[in-house]
Amino acid sequence: MSSGVQLSFTIGWIAMLLGGVLFWLISRRLPQVEKRHGVAAMTIVFVAFANYFAMALGQGDIFFNGRTVYFARYTDWVITTPILLASLAMFASNSLSRIATLLAALVAADVYMIVTGLVGNLSSAPYNYYWWIISMIAFLVVLGLIWGPLRQRASEDGQMAPFSKLAGMLTALWVCYPIVWLVGSSGADLISVTVESWLYLVLDVTAKVGFGFVALSAARQGQSRAH
Amino acid sequence: MSSGVQLSFTIGWIAMLLGGVLFWLISRRLPQVEKRHGVAAMTIVFVAFANYFAMALGQGDIFFNGRTVYFARYTDWVITTPILLASLAMFASNSLSRIATLLAALVAADVYMIVTGLVGNLSSAPYNYYWWIISMIAFLVVLGLIWGPLRQRASEDGQMAPFSKLAGMLTALWVCYPIVWLVGSSGADLISVTVESWLYLVLDVTAKVGFGFVALSAARQGQSRAH
Ligand SMILES: CC1=C(/C=C/C(C)=C/C=C/C(C)=C/C=O)C(C)(C)CCC1
Ligand SMILES: CC1=C(/C=C/C(C)=C/C=C/C(C)=C/C=O)C(C)(C)CCC1
Repeated sequence: MSSGVQLSFTIGWIAMLLGGVLFWLISRRLPQVEKRHGVAAMTIVFVAFANYFAMALGQGDIFFNGRTVYFARYTDWVITTPILLASLAMFASNSLSRIATLLAALVAADVYMIVTGLVGNLSSAPYNYYWWIISMIAFLVVLGLIWGPLRQRASEDGQMAPFSKLAGMLTALWVCYPIVWLVGSSGADLISVTVESWLYLVLDVTAKVGFGFVALSAARQGQSRAH
Repeated sequence: MSSGVQLSFTIGWIAMLLGGVLFWLISRRLPQVEKRHGVAAMTIVFVAFANYFAMALGQGDIFFNGRTVYFARYTDWVITTPILLASLAMFASNSLSRIATLLAALVAADVYMIVTGLVGNLSSAPYNYYWWIISMIAFLVVLGLIWGPLRQRASEDGQMAPFSKLAGMLTALWVCYPIVWLVGSSGADLISVTVESWLYLVLDVTAKVGFGFVALSAARQGQSRAH
């Protein structure tokens, strides 16, 4: 592993850890009914911490089909992205049971996206591109569900302002992942592994710590407004 | 891979994809409360699509203990059979929480059945037969739970007519799997790998696309009857 890649992993686990401490401090001051947002945000960053830590120790990669695959990225994403979606969904409705079917569909498409992405990363050309396309379709389903039925739900019985803000932030960040994947070592190899790992680092920190911070702030404000 | 086997995989992923499109069209017209049936049916066929696609590309098998094991069949089944059971259970009760324990037991026995079946497929004789017996016992537990407590539940607060139809269809199809396994390459090797793969294909398409179609039709009718 090059020292640039190594450094990005070290910064990764430290950033996730700091994010976790931050969320813990904010959560303590959240009213009881909004604590669920804190639980989601903390779970996300601590899972990411463990995966970055594993990669920093050299335990999160395998050599397969002639290249190094950082599979720990996928074990991170497959757990954290469903929680990120649940996090967003909690602003669309106060009762998860009322959006259970929708959330189930979102999580199914999302897990499908991550797993087929991993299969693609373990495949040689041109198969990796086939899997990228399959994963992209699942991703479009995720976005379609967010901006269609979930948004509809939010406008009926959710908190529209934080929902729109978070859905926009999520969309803007998430669309970058398939692009990095495509130009990175899993795809056309147009950028170096070092650049790739720094891009994922910036995305991961923003999509987890940044997103969580915005979500927790909204949860605190939403609550104080409701009283 | 022989061309007959290859062809069965290609037909497999195409059939699953077409099933997915069909279910999507039907789901759009389902009333809100019945959409969960559509989500289940679509998830099942899209997962099967990915596994058949991987097998068609030659990515779904490993050479182990002197024979080719199509492990992607098991990654398909271990995800789709629990959803098929959930699908059936949704006709036994409108509220999944009221049959949560029962569904947990069903899924536990079912996953046990698939995983021990995979271990058997990776074993040489006579060990493979031991695992077949263990897997069969789990299968009998699944059937016992369906025709005992779950059926009881359906008669109390479910929709008995579609439940009986689907449970019968499921039982008739599922019992064929251990037979194919036993006479196929995983067992006594009495049939060729080509015949084996076509038998699994017919079973998989019927147990997923056929079953899903019957379930979605029942969901649509059940709803219109309730109003
Ligand atoms: C569509 C697509 C992908 C999408 C990945 C996404 C959307 C990941 C999001 C990760 C987040 C948000 C992590 C942590 O916060 C992959 C898997 C790269 C494979 C190629 C196609
Ligand atoms: C009992 C038994 C088995 C049962 C398999 C079954 C029942 C599979 C069902 C698959 C379906 C329904 C797939 C898709 O729709 C195995 C694993 C062959 C191993 C041998 C013993």
